[in-house]
Amino acid sequence: MAVYTHVPAEDLAVFLQRYDVGVLKSAKGIAEGVENSNYLVETSQARFILTLYEKRVNRAELPFFLGLMSHLAAAGLPCPEPIRDRSGQALQELHGRAACLIEFVPGLSLAEPTAPHCFAVGQALAKLHLAAKSYTGRRTNDLSLAGWQQLAARCGAAADTVQAGLSQRIAAELTKLTAAWPTGFDQCVIHADLFPDNVLFDGETVAGLIDFYFAAYDLRLYDLAVTHSAWCFNATGEVFHVGRSHALIDGYATIFPIQRDERDALPVLCRGAALRFLLTRLYDWQNRAPGALVTPKDPLAFDRRLAFYQQPGLAL
Amino acid sequence: MAVYTHVPAEDLAVFLQRYDVGVLKSAKGIAEGVENSNYLVETSQARFILTLYEKRVNRAELPFFLGLMSHLAAAGLPCPEPIRDRSGQALQELHGRAACLIEFVPGLSLAEPTAPHCFAVGQALAKLHLAAKSYTGRRTNDLSLAGWQQLAARCGAAADTVQAGLSQRIAAELTKLTAAWPTGFDQCVIHADLFPDNVLFDGETVAGLIDFYFAAYDLRLYDLAVTHSAWCFNATGEVFHVGRSHALIDGYATIFPIQRDERDALPVLCRGAALRFLLTRLYDWQNRAPGALVTPKDPLAFDRRLAFYQQPGLAL
Repeated sequence: MAVYTHVPAEDLAVFLQRYDVGVLKSAKGIAEGVENSNYLVETSQARFILTLYEKRVNRAELPFFLGLMSHLAAAGLPCPEPIRDRSGQALQELHGRAACLIEFVPGLSLAEPTAPHCFAVGQALAKLHLAAKSYTGRRTNDLSLAGWQQLAARCGAAADTVQAGLSQRIAAELTKLTAAWPTGFDQCVIHADLFPDNVLFDGETVAGLIDFYFAAYDLRLYDLAVTHSAWCFNATGEVFHVGRSHALIDGYATIFPIQRDERDALPVLCRGAALRFLLTRLYDWQNRAPGALVTPKDPLAFDRRLAFYQQPGLAL
Repeated sequence: MAVYTHVPAEDLAVFLQRYDVGVLKSAKGIAEGVENSNYLVETSQARFILTLYEKRVNRAELPFFLGLMSHLAAAGLPCPEPIRDRSGQALQELHGRAACLIEFVPGLSLAEPTAPHCFAVGQALAKLHLAAKSYTGRRTNDLSLAGWQQLAARCGAAADTVQAGLSQRIAAELTKLTAAWPTGFDQCVIHADLFPDNVLFDGETVAGLIDFYFAAYDLRLYDLAVTHSAWCFNATGEVFHVGRSHALIDGYATIFPIQRDERDALPVLCRGAALRFLLTRLYDWQNRAPGALVTPKDPLAFDRRLAFYQQPGLAL
């Protein structure tokens, strides 16, 4: 949540001359995105987000992400469109960073979405999947089963310093999920990180879907599971909102019907989603730099979700 | 340069209902201001900056600062106007912080202003002084001579860990300035921190003067000296730009003539300005917290400016 790379206004003004977007009028560094530096840029014609990709982003993957955003925007999804310069290029270089000028989408990210918001997000996610079906770009999800096993190994027994028994619980869950993970379900490119911060609302209407930098080719309903784990609990993971849960799944099903076997698999997919965020948060927690600009998020908020999804006989 | 207090969009939307400003459409935390949290807020009617005042700000002084901004805006200066709620109140409370919704002023802060920019800033500063003459609010400048002496005492001999001999040079300069500081010159409420970050340009026109939170009643030409020290050197203080210096002073003099004795006093006033920022930067440097969100600025950049202004026979 910070600007890591500072770009003087004079350099921004020169940079924008590559595009047909008018003249720079205002630029504010915004506290958005954990991984990148972002500026809200206003020209004589429109507003944009300028993203500078910091070190943790794999530059070779940027064409996949930007291509996906263009593809979804062209399909009518409210996804911000990467802007092309006069030579047709979207991916740029600025101040030693890969960079992209992206359409600005107004709207509000909600801290406590209601059931109608969740219904709208379910519909938007299903529409995203429908449109993503025809996207030919491919990226392996390095944060699926194999990735979780690597992360768990790197976190190791130190997980127990966060909570006694945590490393053992993670190991047991990995064993269960490896055995129970669904195969044969529909796959496509998924968002894989559709948290409330990444959805912009105008009232109860989804006005923007943003931050595609975890998108990958994976089980379509795993994306619904990620979204479920992100939208249907309070921040600490202690309160499950059953109304939001029904609304999210029902909204999805109005666009993309959910089969009986898919519905039955939702709890295990949600366990995977909860474990994924437990592990990445745990890793970030263990590896936080003293002086870092970003406060790591509490891993246990997803351990609690995992415990919820592990309930025997749970139906979602 | 960060958002310290996070306000959920839902709370912002409710907060804005106190005003006649329309409905919240977008809110982005912006990386602006070292001391406070700032949001760029868009409603159905206009854009605003919402400032939440963090701990270092003395709440009792906020009416002075906000009153000054209103006074200057009413006088036609391009200063953002604090917005009043339906009961006429500008100073508010939000999430345990004093807060104010302020007009958004578009424009660009320059890293390397040119002589025409400096001329325009000189004129804007003189106009600000003309308008401030009729502002009846008063605040003592706690960062003038007495304040510098206190800061120097608190920094102490540890200054020498930044550069050998620094504490001794500071002590000697304080002695000189105490003897040579002008008395009897014109006073009014001054900005006291008009760095390039605090001036927004539209081309070569000053479109905004912002960040009045160091404003105080003091020598009018000390404000020109502060502005001189901020605009007429490169960032490290190693390069003096004589063209900018002449333009700044000439611009000021077109609006508010400078008398012979005032002009002769400029070098000593600039020495004071350089020492003020040397000392506050040194203090912040020595007292930086290990995980702080703000990277302290280099104190020596103002030690170099001080050395420039100390040159025997210097005429500005």
